[in-house]
Amino acid sequence: MDLSAELKRYVARVEHGLALHVPFASTRPARLHTAMRYSLEAGGKRLRPVLLLATAELFGVRDDTPLPAAVAVECLHTYSLIHDDLPCMDNDDLRRGRPTAHKQFDEATALLAGDALLTHAFGLIAESYALRPTLAHALIRELADAAGSRRLIGGQMEDLLAEKKADVTPEELEFIHLNKTAAMIESSLVIGGLVGSAHLAELATLRRAGRDVGLAFQIIDDILDATADTATLGKTAGKDAKADKTTFVKLHGLARSREIAHQRSASAVAELRLLPGNTAFLCALVEQMAARAA
Amino acid sequence: MDLSAELKRYVARVEHGLALHVPFASTRPARLHTAMRYSLEAGGKRLRPVLLLATAELFGVRDDTPLPAAVAVECLHTYSLIHDDLPCMDNDDLRRGRPTAHKQFDEATALLAGDALLTHAFGLIAESYALRPTLAHALIRELADAAGSRRLIGGQMEDLLAEKKADVTPEELEFIHLNKTAAMIESSLVIGGLVGSAHLAELATLRRAGRDVGLAFQIIDDILDATADTATLGKTAGKDAKADKTTFVKLHGLARSREIAHQRSASAVAELRLLPGNTAFLCALVEQMAARAA
Repeated sequence: MDLSAELKRYVARVEHGLALHVPFASTRPARLHTAMRYSLEAGGKRLRPVLLLATAELFGVRDDTPLPAAVAVECLHTYSLIHDDLPCMDNDDLRRGRPTAHKQFDEATALLAGDALLTHAFGLIAESYALRPTLAHALIRELADAAGSRRLIGGQMEDLLAEKKADVTPEELEFIHLNKTAAMIESSLVIGGLVGSAHLAELATLRRAGRDVGLAFQIIDDILDATADTATLGKTAGKDAKADKTTFVKLHGLARSREIAHQRSASAVAELRLLPGNTAFLCALVEQMAARAA
Repeated sequence: MDLSAELKRYVARVEHGLALHVPFASTRPARLHTAMRYSLEAGGKRLRPVLLLATAELFGVRDDTPLPAAVAVECLHTYSLIHDDLPCMDNDDLRRGRPTAHKQFDEATALLAGDALLTHAFGLIAESYALRPTLAHALIRELADAAGSRRLIGGQMEDLLAEKKADVTPEELEFIHLNKTAAMIESSLVIGGLVGSAHLAELATLRRAGRDVGLAFQIIDDILDATADTATLGKTAGKDAKADKTTFVKLHGLARSREIAHQRSASAVAELRLLPGNTAFLCALVEQMAARAA
């Protein structure tokens, strides 16, 4: 299997889905919809929607049924980035190599574009799966849970609070990683399974695998922030150390962080292999991700 | 019928629903959930959830089935107020007679509390109507549409853009009112009807009535901003004139604004009377609202 070619194929499907399932930039009010599309179209790895599409394929779904769900997950992820970049949060000027939404437009427009992408995620699922209300309902429940106050937003809140603390415990850091990062990655796999009518035991396996992928991903992100440069990352590098932020690298050191990232990836791969269908692509994707942290 | 006693009864049900269907303030992270409850518990008229409950009753639903939907609508409304009050938006310090969320906590917490209330609205419906996925699906579709980029958020965006413009046309002002204010009021009635299994024609009547109630409500809000004081309003009065904001009063004058508000209310009442059940409470509520503008 050619990982890079396969990945390209998935990313192209996601881009196609984004073009199709998000209002045109010219929709009234144009400034709002332009800002929504600006942030969505800034690129990025599309990790979450790719995981979702590839998971659905494990369960035999090869058509475009999961595409609106994949777009919804990317809308949700993009909203969280836009709000996270705002001056009152991380105050970041650069994202995916381009000015952040509030830099390109203004704070109010960025705030509203984030709100609109979050709302669109739920609306798109409700609209796209109108003929399968039970599926729509399950997807929305999963998504609201992962993106809610106990998970994604809760992780962002604790992340902010941790920045003001002298010592953050490993348990607190794990809460942040599990919720700020892993929740949506976990959900992407679970939603892929739900679209593919996976059984309960399979959904549980997907959740465990997604959790491991998410934790590995966040540790690797911490490692790259400490070791790569801004041009490579497409976002400001070395930010964590500069802000004296408690990261995995700060708590456990670089060598041990790499070890844990590899362990998490390996256990994600082991979980994925329990699933039906051809898991070669998903396993290779996770392994390549881990290899980035060297 | 004793309007004030009936209204009290509905509001008490809404308060009960809020206590029941929103995470405890102590839920981790406590700061986030405390901020969510702070804004929700600031009071306010509870107009939207009361309209929803009273509409469901028209269709024979007297139990607590519509309560989670009513709470969801209030969560959504409260999120829009929290974000609207932020410094990058209206920059308001006072809401419902208390410090706004970003004054009481900080901007980041207010931003996240708003995000969390928006997400909770969808999650609560998905969870509460799990045994009726078709209803859950219809409610979410209605809510996402009303709160989305073409309606609620679109109205807020155009409202912001209008503030920077020398002359706002009546058509632009109507777009703002229809979407920023009327969309969620309209949806509250429609959702009440959906929970009560209303027919399509009844849902259309509810939508028209809700639209008229919403437009009347916004015109009255403009009139009160121009004529009442801060203590009476529980929010900063005279803001519109001070900001030289284009309001209904500025475009049409006080006398004509009152006339139009009364016309809109009268046509809402006429629509409501087409519906089954006892519409006395709803009609009296709309008439009392109009009377506030004298």
